[in-house]
Order: sequence, then C-alpha cells, then structure tokens
Amino acid sequence: MKVLITGGAGFLGQRLARELLSRDVLHLSEATSSRVSELVLLDVVAATGPHDDRVRIAIGDIADRSVLEKFIDTDTVAIFHLAAVVSGQAEADFDLGMRINLDASRLLLEVCRRLGHSPRVVFTSSVAVYGGSLTDIVLDDTALNPQSSYGAEKAVAEFLLNDYSRRGFIDGRVLRLPTISVRPGKPNAAASSFASGIIREPLTGHRSVCPVSGDTKLWLLSPRKAAECLVAGCEIDGAAFGNRRTVNLPGISVTVSEMIKTLRDVAGDAIANRVEWKLDERIEKIVGSWPAMWDTTRAIELGLTADASFEHILRNFIDDELGGDSPHD
Amino acid sequence: MKVLITGGAGFLGQRLARELLSRDVLHLSEATSSRVSELVLLDVVAATGPHDDRVRIAIGDIADRSVLEKFIDTDTVAIFHLAAVVSGQAEADFDLGMRINLDASRLLLEVCRRLGHSPRVVFTSSVAVYGGSLTDIVLDDTALNPQSSYGAEKAVAEFLLNDYSRRGFIDGRVLRLPTISVRPGKPNAAASSFASGIIREPLTGHRSVCPVSGDTKLWLLSPRKAAECLVAGCEIDGAAFGNRRTVNLPGISVTVSEMIKTLRDVAGDAIANRVEWKLDERIEKIVGSWPAMWDTTRAIELGLTADASFEHILRNFIDDELGGDSPHD
Repeated sequence: MKVLITGGAGFLGQRLARELLSRDVLHLSEATSSRVSELVLLDVVAATGPHDDRVRIAIGDIADRSVLEKFIDTDTVAIFHLAAVVSGQAEADFDLGMRINLDASRLLLEVCRRLGHSPRVVFTSSVAVYGGSLTDIVLDDTALNPQSSYGAEKAVAEFLLNDYSRRGFIDGRVLRLPTISVRPGKPNAAASSFASGIIREPLTGHRSVCPVSGDTKLWLLSPRKAAECLVAGCEIDGAAFGNRRTVNLPGISVTVSEMIKTLRDVAGDAIANRVEWKLDERIEKIVGSWPAMWDTTRAIELGLTADASFEHILRNFIDDELGGDSPHD
Repeated sequence: MKVLITGGAGFLGQRLARELLSRDVLHLSEATSSRVSELVLLDVVAATGPHDDRVRIAIGDIADRSVLEKFIDTDTVAIFHLAAVVSGQAEADFDLGMRINLDASRLLLEVCRRLGHSPRVVFTSSVAVYGGSLTDIVLDDTALNPQSSYGAEKAVAEFLLNDYSRRGFIDGRVLRLPTISVRPGKPNAAASSFASGIIREPLTGHRSVCPVSGDTKLWLLSPRKAAECLVAGCEIDGAAFGNRRTVNLPGISVTVSEMIKTLRDVAGDAIANRVEWKLDERIEKIVGSWPAMWDTTRAIELGLTADASFEHILRNFIDDELGGDSPHD
C-alpha cells in the first residue's frame, strides 16, 4: 500500500517518514497489517531523505489539484497532511495562508472523495485554534476561538475533515499538536521558536535568547512522540472517535525555568549558562495566549501517550539528533 | 446608504425587509443614523415584495462572483447574508450545500474585502453547529460539533466571518438563530419544518404530521423577533463583541406538547386535533441532536431579546400572517 506525507520535507514529515519505514507496516485493523510499499514525501522542496527504496520524493504545490491527483490513488491507504503555511506567514500573507491551509486541505479531501476508497487522512492542527479567555485546562469540549488567520484556517480544515469523515468520504482524524520541543534545525521566526532554541542552541555550542519569563508554562511534545502519535492516530479504528474526529494530543506541562534546570542537570552549568534572558513583550503575549495544559483523557483512552518527562525529551533529543553525545563543557 | 439582503425572497428576508423599511434608518453609531436609500433583495427567484420605492429586486446566484460584485459597492453599508441551502437539502446534495453555504459566503466576504470599506455583514447561523454529547444548556463557549453538512458549513462560515472581522476586512457579526417558529409559507425540506407546520397548517385548515415525540424540547424564536434581532445585531458597535463575533440569539424553551396545548387553548380542539403524530426516526435523531436551550447572558448584554412566551409567538403569527383572525372551528 501507498502512504503520502504532505509537508514531507519538513522536520516532522522527515521524522514521521523514518518512523513509518522502521515500522514497515501499518495496523489498520485488528486483522490487517499492511506493508508500506511506497512512501511519497510531497513538498514544495525536495525532501533530503530518508534514503530507502520505498521512498518517492515529490515536488509540487498541494493547492494544485493535478499534483494531488498525481500522488493520491486508490492504493493510497493513508495520508498524513502536515503541509501548512505557518502562523506568522499566514498572518502576513492572508491569501497564501488561505490557499494552503484551507483550499489545499479541502482539495485533498475532495480528491479522496472522488476516488471513493475512503482512505485514512491524518490532519495536524494546533493550539492556535484556541484563544480569547481560556480556562486553565483546555477541555476537549472547549470552544474554538482562533485569534490568528492560521488558527481560523486550521479550525475550518478541522470541521471539513470531520464532515467528510461523517459522510464516509474519508476516514479522517485531526491531531492537535502541543508545542513541539526539542525541534532540530535552526531558530525560526515562529513565536514558539525559543521553546526548542533554549535547549538545542546551547547543546550545539550557541548562545540562545529566552524571550519569556521563567514561570511561563509550556505544553510540550517531543518530535519522537509526535511521530509515534501520528502513526498511532492513523491506526486507531475510525469508530473509536465517535462523533468527533478531533483529538488534543497529550503533552507535558513544564515551565521554562524547569526546562533550563533540566538542561543544567543533564549537560552542566556552562551549557545552561548559554541561555540569555531578554524579555520580548510581543512573544510573551502570543505564548501567554496559548493554553498551558489540556485535558488528555480522551487522547489517552484512544491510546495516545505523552512523553514521560522533560528530562526524557531532552535525552531523546541528544540521542536522536546529537548522536547520543551529552556534551559537557 | 444601500443595504443588501441575500435570500431576500425568503420568509425571513421578506420580514427583515419590512422591518428595515418601516424603521427607515440604521443607527450604525451613537452619532450616525443613516437612511436606507436602497434595499437590494437578492435571491435566486424574484422577491414578491415589499412594494416600496427603496426596494430593488434582484435575481442571481450568490456563488457567482459577478453577481455579488454587481450588488455590493462602497455605498453598501450593511449586508444581511441569509441565503442558504437548508439542512435537508445540504445533506442530500453535498456539492450544492458546499457551494452556497460555504463558497458563496466566502465569496461575499472576499468581495467586501476587495472593496475595502469594511461594511457591516450580518450572517445567520444555526443550532446545527452543535451536536454530539451536549450539556442541558449550551454556553457561549460550548465547542461546536456539527453532525450535518449544513452545520459544518455554517461553522466554517462563522470562523471565516470572525477572521475577516478580526483583520478589519469587514465588520461582521454572526447571529445563531434558534428554530424559527411560526414560519409562514409551506412546509419545506428542513428537519425543523414541523416546528412551524404543527401550528401553521392547522390554523390554515390543513392537517399536519408531527414527526417527533411530545416531550421533544425546542428552542424557538418568532419571525418578528428574529427580524428585530437582525436589525439590532447590525446596529451593535463592533467593539462590543470583543474577540468573538458570534452570538447565540435568545429563544424560549418549549416542548412540542406545550406548543400544541397553546394551540388548543388559543384556537380550540378541532384545530389542535389536526395534528397527527407519526414518529420519523430520521427527523427525531436530527432534532434530538440540537440543544434545547442555550445561555443567553451575552446576547442580552448586547441588547438582543427573546419572545415573552410561546403564546405571544402564536398570537403574533395570527396577527402578522392571518390578518389577526384567530380561526376557531
């Protein structure tokens, strides 16, 4: 069977691809273990890996129907739709955000509908669907109130996926991701960039600025667990979702101070001291609008689990991205 | 100034048109009372009235951009977007529902955005955005969980209107309507058609089938109050909505048995006995998924009010639609 990952060149798409290839099979029902014979990594740039006979690297615009029709057919049993224009960019370029986050998502659902084989479609969504006055713990039935175009577009895509699933056009599921930390790669313009930067940069020999106060609470999931949750989310029997296909993935709630203390305990003072505090009101405001914790009862019932602790997250990052070296000063 | 009503030939559009014409002005700010110099009633069929020099009757497909561009210009200060494919039809014809309830709504927002004058846009939405396991009283922050394509399309349109408003492209507001009763006209394909039919049909000499059990609770608003709320909703200062442009309109909670008892009290046994009970599981299921009551604190703070009682609703229907005659057997 074929599997498609949109956004397949991104860090999460790459991580998911490695996870799928190492598993080799998807358990789509109790009776069926289907082998992943072809894994299409579709993105606007060529994915750099993984190097594997099963991987097909594809370049294309997912808002172009012919591109989707080229890479989705009735053998495409599972689609992981990770491609998105990120929040800052969707706010700066409204038309681009609508085109990719809304129109392309709908087009993907339509292409599946026309094929008629009701594939599993896993959408990733975001904390950005929430906003306004929030309770301390966001529940599964807390109303969405996005305060960004990115959040609004994700909310719209969630509702479309739910209705296409209810009608049997697809067998969809939406996984709302906590803030992913520790991300590999470079710092970027995202408001959440620091949530990885304050760990990754010191560990790789660089200074890093923390723009929020130490008592800022974050709701985190590691890339490793995120990839595991995406696969597990795909394997859940559709009926288990009942009348709602959207699930908040479990995370762990930690303060920024706790994260840096863990870095200090694991990697030593010299490395932890590479974090420089420099408050940025704009980022504090955005991050402060995100829910610091959400109720994970439903996710756990569905078999989706969080990281054990931030120390686990940190040690996994060292294992996965730094070759297992825990660099001391 | 110009005012546009989409769905202007429908019963609510017609009722709203009469309300606007009799008021003659819209109070769009404390300082400004703008005269309604032109009222465009746009629909797929020609509106039959009201006969008034200010009225311009227009026929066109609102999913056609050129139609919207013809009837919206920078003098169009207020738009009431009532046109929709009803729930039963949107469920039966998925593409049609998406085209009118989603694409045309978005197109309307886009046409306004391109003009750049940020007009007031009043969308009507529906109880159908709710569904699944609901608490007895739906709160303003109860999560949406539509269980029909109509509900999903309305939810999507709500999020789009909110984001277009947040960005200043329009000055929008969404009013979620309770079930409107007593509607004039003929029974239609809406699952809620009986909520008017069981009163209107007996009063106009016809038998009527009630497809749900007597203890079914409905959340009702009269056409008269609905038109008043639409005008009031348009006149509210945008800032009063805070970070959420969507408001649940106040209604009254009554059971179907109470409705028929009121009919019996007001119009007599012979008329009330024209209601025939014949359960329809499909309709019971849809209606049973709707909330029977919602918290109206926010609506009332914004100055939007409900009918006093179902007896008031019934007597208003007799006054407004039957010329004041309360027909006895």
